[in-house]
Amino acid sequence: MPIIETIPNVSDGRRPDVVARLVAAVGATPGVRLLDHSSDRSHNRSVLTMIGDGPALKQAILALYEAALPLIDLRSHRGEHPRLGAVDVVPFVPIEGVTMAECVTLAREVGEAVASRFGVPVFLYEEASANPARKNLEDIRRGEFEGLTAKMASPGWAPDFGPATPHPTAGASVIGARLPLIAYNINLNTDRLDVARRIATAIRHSSGGLRYVKAMGVMLEDRGIAQVSMNLTNYEKTPIHRVFDLVAREAARYGVSVLESEVIGLIPAAALVGAAEHYLQLERFGPSQILETQLRSPSS
Amino acid sequence: MPIIETIPNVSDGRRPDVVARLVAAVGATPGVRLLDHSSDRSHNRSVLTMIGDGPALKQAILALYEAALPLIDLRSHRGEHPRLGAVDVVPFVPIEGVTMAECVTLAREVGEAVASRFGVPVFLYEEASANPARKNLEDIRRGEFEGLTAKMASPGWAPDFGPATPHPTAGASVIGARLPLIAYNINLNTDRLDVARRIATAIRHSSGGLRYVKAMGVMLEDRGIAQVSMNLTNYEKTPIHRVFDLVAREAARYGVSVLESEVIGLIPAAALVGAAEHYLQLERFGPSQILETQLRSPSS
Repeated sequence: MPIIETIPNVSDGRRPDVVARLVAAVGATPGVRLLDHSSDRSHNRSVLTMIGDGPALKQAILALYEAALPLIDLRSHRGEHPRLGAVDVVPFVPIEGVTMAECVTLAREVGEAVASRFGVPVFLYEEASANPARKNLEDIRRGEFEGLTAKMASPGWAPDFGPATPHPTAGASVIGARLPLIAYNINLNTDRLDVARRIATAIRHSSGGLRYVKAMGVMLEDRGIAQVSMNLTNYEKTPIHRVFDLVAREAARYGVSVLESEVIGLIPAAALVGAAEHYLQLERFGPSQILETQLRSPSS
Repeated sequence: MPIIETIPNVSDGRRPDVVARLVAAVGATPGVRLLDHSSDRSHNRSVLTMIGDGPALKQAILALYEAALPLIDLRSHRGEHPRLGAVDVVPFVPIEGVTMAECVTLAREVGEAVASRFGVPVFLYEEASANPARKNLEDIRRGEFEGLTAKMASPGWAPDFGPATPHPTAGASVIGARLPLIAYNINLNTDRLDVARRIATAIRHSSGGLRYVKAMGVMLEDRGIAQVSMNLTNYEKTPIHRVFDLVAREAARYGVSVLESEVIGLIPAAALVGAAEHYLQLERFGPSQILETQLRSPSS
């Protein structure tokens, strides 16, 4: 069975009864497994993480809209995190036995259904967007709910699906497909925050570095060491080993070495297998050679 | 559900009808999945690969003996591969959700049942053997079927289970528990076979190298390059990255570099994840952080 992950971000993180009803709506969908949900008061935002196949996740997301729209009114929503809509962002992530192209198709189907059933305009993003200027979530969300009417009236900002103006209370949604994010930190053998910051500047995409790296330098006060804190947004195209090697090389420039690295949360096995393949110079190797893959393949 | 692998080696590789009956006996056992079977004419030996839980595999192995004993007579068996018995070797390998200790227990249970039901003496080996002199398969099998009566009469060679003398036609069996073997080759940027041989001598256990490495130097005639061909018998204690680094270091001694490495057949994901952890200097990392592990854990 194909496994897809979706992580809808909803614009309420302060009313536990509302969040509970959204969680219940999703959880009641057959074939969907809710892995996690968390709410942030200052962001006033909740994130639900679930897996299933395409049809099950489509049902779950529609059930989420059904539950959320009567309960969330963006006109009175305040929070630190930028947002466009009640159901703000819905990414679909290929996990196993499914291609990115299939997740793109799913994102489009869900976007179309959300627009037609609920009258909420939908912007496609990342892999689901065919428009290079509308792939990046930050670009689409710039101006937020408050600026949405003006933005949608400006050239190039008609939605991919649905009405040409925002939904009065639910704004708009950003729906798309992307690879899993990897939260990856490299700790340096130094207490110099400036070194971590210079390395972050050197390696991140926004300032000229690797295409799928977001990075900043931070200080781990309790340990007295500096850290390059990163998000890797496409481990297939910007693999973790290349990020590690480049950070180590940049650090050496300042006479600093890498103390250790760490993965925060989850990482796909393929990202680590890719690193092993690289350093071991493995050739002629395929996923079918991993014992666990064999165990789960259909009986021969 | 726990997954154990067993790979019984049977002393017939020349009579397809016999092999077919053995395969059928194993395949008919509920809860057992036969992954592979292959026969070698010159070795006159067949290898069956199957997975299941402990009770299912015990049933399958007993069914294998039931089928094999009337069909195989070691007194007339000839082949290049050393062997002691009709069902020669039965390793149990922990794959998932099961400990080595549980595989040791299973090996002892199966050994006891084989001895009592079929009157075949059983030697425990590798992790299942408590006797350091009787862990190594080659040591136990030395002298083969033809020397077995004399060997079993000599000090220290009473079997772990069963009669003190060989079964007249089925000899004895070696049953135990071990980690998965990894067949791992490193190809060198040279046509010098002597360099591959010297590296093999340096790194293998038998001549002073790493504890769980068997190695030899061979020539890949069609590509004109030399290869260090290895079996890694315990990737937890002698990890693949240490083998790679040591071979590269020894090669540099001769002005030779590593062209590439390759895994033949299957490798447990943990062996590759371990290599990634090493080279990326990953700390505070556990298997629960691998996305795929989460997907398969019981619903939370």
